[in-house]
Amino acid sequence: MDYAAESLKLHYQWNGKLDTVPKMPVDSKEALSLAYTPGVAAPCLKIKEQPGEVWKLTDRANTVAVVTDGSAVLGLGNIGAEASLPVMEGKCVLFKAFGGVNAVPLCIGSQEVEDIVSAVRLIAPSFGGINLEDIAAPRCFEVERRLRQECGIPVFHDDQHGTAIVAAAAVQNACKVVGKELKDMKAVFSGAGAAGTAIFKLLHRLGLREATLYDINGVVYPGRADLEGDPYLAELAALSRPAVTEGGLSAALKGADLFIGVSAPGLVTANMVRSMAPRPILFPMANPTPEIMPDEARSAGAAVVGTGRSDFPNQINNVLVFPGVFRGALDAGAVEINEEMELAAVEALAGLVGEDLSPDYILPAPFDERVCPAVAAAVADAARRTGAVRPGR
Amino acid sequence: MDYAAESLKLHYQWNGKLDTVPKMPVDSKEALSLAYTPGVAAPCLKIKEQPGEVWKLTDRANTVAVVTDGSAVLGLGNIGAEASLPVMEGKCVLFKAFGGVNAVPLCIGSQEVEDIVSAVRLIAPSFGGINLEDIAAPRCFEVERRLRQECGIPVFHDDQHGTAIVAAAAVQNACKVVGKELKDMKAVFSGAGAAGTAIFKLLHRLGLREATLYDINGVVYPGRADLEGDPYLAELAALSRPAVTEGGLSAALKGADLFIGVSAPGLVTANMVRSMAPRPILFPMANPTPEIMPDEARSAGAAVVGTGRSDFPNQINNVLVFPGVFRGALDAGAVEINEEMELAAVEALAGLVGEDLSPDYILPAPFDERVCPAVAAAVADAARRTGAVRPGR
Repeated sequence: MDYAAESLKLHYQWNGKLDTVPKMPVDSKEALSLAYTPGVAAPCLKIKEQPGEVWKLTDRANTVAVVTDGSAVLGLGNIGAEASLPVMEGKCVLFKAFGGVNAVPLCIGSQEVEDIVSAVRLIAPSFGGINLEDIAAPRCFEVERRLRQECGIPVFHDDQHGTAIVAAAAVQNACKVVGKELKDMKAVFSGAGAAGTAIFKLLHRLGLREATLYDINGVVYPGRADLEGDPYLAELAALSRPAVTEGGLSAALKGADLFIGVSAPGLVTANMVRSMAPRPILFPMANPTPEIMPDEARSAGAAVVGTGRSDFPNQINNVLVFPGVFRGALDAGAVEINEEMELAAVEALAGLVGEDLSPDYILPAPFDERVCPAVAAAVADAARRTGAVRPGR
Repeated sequence: MDYAAESLKLHYQWNGKLDTVPKMPVDSKEALSLAYTPGVAAPCLKIKEQPGEVWKLTDRANTVAVVTDGSAVLGLGNIGAEASLPVMEGKCVLFKAFGGVNAVPLCIGSQEVEDIVSAVRLIAPSFGGINLEDIAAPRCFEVERRLRQECGIPVFHDDQHGTAIVAAAAVQNACKVVGKELKDMKAVFSGAGAAGTAIFKLLHRLGLREATLYDINGVVYPGRADLEGDPYLAELAALSRPAVTEGGLSAALKGADLFIGVSAPGLVTANMVRSMAPRPILFPMANPTPEIMPDEARSAGAAVVGTGRSDFPNQINNVLVFPGVFRGALDAGAVEINEEMELAAVEALAGLVGEDLSPDYILPAPFDERVCPAVAAAVADAARRTGAVRPGR
């Protein structure tokens, strides 16, 4: 199918992908007096007296904002607020379809950190959580850091943490397939933006000790001249312990156990794969065309390959993560999404594969109905365990 | 019925009054690829190339934000953002039920003009219109003025203009009942906040020349000491040509033809009504208890009485206005809601009463299904006539 043409045609038919729908009929004077004035004064006064009741008397406990500045949308780059709206609406559709979460697209008409932070902070009282989406690095790090401090509700940049959680679950299960442990492995990352940074950090938390990360200027290593003005990249350089500081991907891939690609099509060749350690794992996740096609990687000796694509085995798809993460956070009355909750999501997701684990089955399928409940339960439990919930929950 | 107790109970059952619902099923790999990646890139690129297509390819053309700062909610006063959420959700319910308009509640966590303006301006790219709600005067005037300049989409403070439109339609038909013309009438307003100001201005535009407006400090007249710092009240004083500058309501009501109350319960007595001109018209609209009860006013000689209440004839209810005004503005692709569009709404609404006009029937009932289509058509037509529509519409 020509997805582009068909999708465009459907979008013209749909005229938007979401409806807001009242939960009750308003077809009589009486119904109007209960859903609106004068009756509605009672829940207002209740919340005024007991602010926590807002979570029971309104949609707040089941509604998230999907926020972007349109600066890094899919693989399309900086297309701006309006042009990013179809993606944000799509994300909201998935929130409801997979997680039962009400979601509202908010495209911000500015790409300044202060503006984005200020707008989201100011509208936060209507929402139970904030899903940041498609905001370019390094701006996304600062926006998220600030909002986590200022909002008091879960703030989650899905391109970072959603991707990191699903990738980490895939890596854990791939390690089982090849019989290696993360702490002994050498990893190479192509791409050190939002996704690359978050995947590395989560894998580091899970035991990975040696990684070489490439960005557009080469290896990210301590002391690289252009890192001075970028505290986020400098932190990455300090943590990652790169095997080399010079040369392209082919230099670092020699003897490496794991490749994580969140960059651009075709950067990895069959020869590079052959130069890796025995039973190498590759996750070339560039969309829609990966760093190396799965069949080519497998032919060259890759033991496990996962991509972003639905037409090959092992799709690394955020839809396995964000509906369950927010479902769990909202259900628990969480005030944040902390690292323990992320790790719980990794374990839950990886654990669903069970005894069927194989080189071609390291993650549950997107439409596996066990996924959202399992992730949600694990995340909610971790929220409670770490005390990251509202008073009284 | 005890609306307060029953409504509170229902709000606990509803857990919020709105759902966001996908317009299409997402139950297969294919469906996912069309509503989301990779297909969704096509409508994004289309909008990037032709920004106007956002109105066809997304929900923007049928979605408004219902925005408040929680500073003047119903008759409850300044209850804040969270406590106002049940009202905003209720408003969104009415937008959908009466106008077919998707509406999203946005409660702003600040009562500073700059913050409110900035937040709304920044999230405007996701919306086709902004309905301001329950923001205290005079802040609401400044917020609306700024947003009308900065947003490029219709901005409408319903407490001002929605109330003014329905009140003006009621006044026009009441004038027909008593056989008077607005230009010859003396009016008295109790309340010179958001609603009082807007009603006066619209009636002035329709011919009213002599009005005495009271606020909490007495008659609003040119030169009153405390008006210096308030340009909005000063403008009102200059326009209104008050009959007196001293004394309470009883002073101004002597010989007056029209009373407009948007203030507090019980301020008008039967004796004051008896002191008015023959066949006086009274709209005591304080909620839930009017300035004078309708039966008392009628006993004292009032020819026509209208209130905000649904349990007496002639309910002056904004629900007759805002669904149709936004329906029409969105349908026409309007970039603003200008005075011509407001006047068109007044005419359309007043016109629906037709030959059944009587002292007890000066406005259509809230559930009269002709209302929204008639108001929408008139507003859309006025938008086109005045060129207040997007290019190409």
